[in-house]
Amino acid sequence: MRYPESLLKLSRALARLPGVGPKTAQKLALFLAFHKEEAEGLREALEGLKALGVCQACGNLAEGALCPICQDEGRDRRTIAVVETVADLYALERSGEFRGLYHVLGGALNPLEGIGPQALNLEGLFRRLQGVEEVVLATSMTVEGEATALYLAEELKKRGVRVSRPAYGLPVGGSLEYADEVTLGKALEGRRPL
Amino acid sequence: MRYPESLLKLSRALARLPGVGPKTAQKLALFLAFHKEEAEGLREALEGLKALGVCQACGNLAEGALCPICQDEGRDRRTIAVVETVADLYALERSGEFRGLYHVLGGALNPLEGIGPQALNLEGLFRRLQGVEEVVLATSMTVEGEATALYLAEELKKRGVRVSRPAYGLPVGGSLEYADEVTLGKALEGRRPL
Repeated sequence: MRYPESLLKLSRALARLPGVGPKTAQKLALFLAFHKEEAEGLREALEGLKALGVCQACGNLAEGALCPICQDEGRDRRTIAVVETVADLYALERSGEFRGLYHVLGGALNPLEGIGPQALNLEGLFRRLQGVEEVVLATSMTVEGEATALYLAEELKKRGVRVSRPAYGLPVGGSLEYADEVTLGKALEGRRPL
Repeated sequence: MRYPESLLKLSRALARLPGVGPKTAQKLALFLAFHKEEAEGLREALEGLKALGVCQACGNLAEGALCPICQDEGRDRRTIAVVETVADLYALERSGEFRGLYHVLGGALNPLEGIGPQALNLEGLFRRLQGVEEVVLATSMTVEGEATALYLAEELKKRGVRVSRPAYGLPVGGSLEYADEVTLGKALEGRRPL
């Protein structure tokens, strides 16, 4: 069987995307081969990606030296939310509840995979603490995220900064019946007067 | 929330791919923003796609006027397999059982969606019948594929060409227990002496 070389090359490039296996990659490559407009749109968008870099202050995606959030004079510069990834930053932004700045770590502590404090964007955070009153440790509610939050809490307290962590509890719209025991326990522990 | 414009553009381009929803598109766009090598590889592969066209003889993908199969002197030019799509052609090639030429229709008859004989690459097929002894109607085993095969069988017999269709039956490795009734019926009907 002889596939055209350019189709093979496209298949292989697509198969490097997360969640795209060789079968899906071939299907997408064939689609793009017969849909020149979609292929050209994607090629142009990838070309445009070259202008996209990382914010020098917070690690968010930025088209210049600073991301739109760090540039925004209306944001509360006394509060920084620490997140693992840019995807987490976008999730927090979608909630509309947070008006401070962000700091993207680029991951979480994971000694088993060799990810120690040096592998994360921590020094950048410590350098930004001038004038900061509170750091919200919005790492994931996973073992790695918890460990990272605990480590950072200690380091930040040493530097005289108040730290907090988003509340554990039941998700909105969630049913008590299907909540796992640990979440339910945390939700009871953190109950609030009505 | 303010996403960088280049990330939004890439998300939208990815969401036009089949099976890629807006959430997956955003995840892939973020991945590509942080994996410049993968993004550049994909961009180059899409650039290379510009050289890819359609074989003037059979409708397969081709980097020149004719596809590698039509150019191959070793193929049996007395037999043509008619398929709906290039993906079907590749599937047949992978089986290694077919040594003739192909003809890609570009779809199947579907009056409900307004796809009549004019919408398919039929005239090209009728023009290729010189010296052809058998046409294998390898359209899908769906209602549309069946209708297309029946229509083509009539047209081709008028032109004095022998027509055939791949056998219906149980897939290799398939269990009787889980076969649907229609397939099982067809498999019994087409039973062969051992």
